[in-house]
Amino acid sequence: MEKVNINEKMNTFSEYWSPKIVGEINDSYVKLAKLNGEFVWHMHEKEDEMFMVIKGRLVIKLRTEDIIINEGEFFIIPRGIEHMPVAENEVHVMLLEPKTTLNTGNVKNERTVEILEKI
Amino acid sequence: MEKVNINEKMNTFSEYWSPKIVGEINDSYVKLAKLNGEFVWHMHEKEDEMFMVIKGRLVIKLRTEDIIINEGEFFIIPRGIEHMPVAENEVHVMLLEPKTTLNTGNVKNERTVEILEKI
Repeated sequence: MEKVNINEKMNTFSEYWSPKIVGEINDSYVKLAKLNGEFVWHMHEKEDEMFMVIKGRLVIKLRTEDIIINEGEFFIIPRGIEHMPVAENEVHVMLLEPKTTLNTGNVKNERTVEILEKI
Repeated sequence: MEKVNINEKMNTFSEYWSPKIVGEINDSYVKLAKLNGEFVWHMHEKEDEMFMVIKGRLVIKLRTEDIIINEGEFFIIPRGIEHMPVAENEVHVMLLEPKTTLNTGNVKNERTVEILEKI
């Protein structure tokens, strides 16, 4: 059994929008990702999703408002709520979401990552 | 819908070993706690539990080894594994565990917190 050092794991990859699995807890994965630019509008029908910012500043656009998440802050996106993450500069995030969660939710396109790497 | 600033929430309470609910995600709670001293040996039969250190240094004693968790690190204690958190000095942690999880697991004593406060 091993602990995880978040920044050490972050240093092992550089690609954007490609979440890596760093932990497994009950029915969920803990993932790390680097984000840069705009993602796509999507939602997760049956899954709440947590974004915690490790480095940088992330905007989660909702249809009703923008949520700005800085280092040391997190936001839980309730199931069924359309959202689009936007990173004006590189952002490092920790994600927590059910194992069934697809990064693009109800949308499938070139941003969809079907198989996640464990690091 | 509101984001959570972890340190702001930490500043709203001071008692040790009394986890506060700061988020709800699927079947789990996100909790914050301040720890100081030794807890009790216990386990959670059906629940994995995540400890992330926000400030300080936490030792999770297992029967086979000690896991030392520093700031920016987390450790997932698998279900069924006996453990005892030990904080030589004050430690701030974020916890993630199913809503059903009792802080003292299979043990009930004066450290058991039956009803958690939401902050």
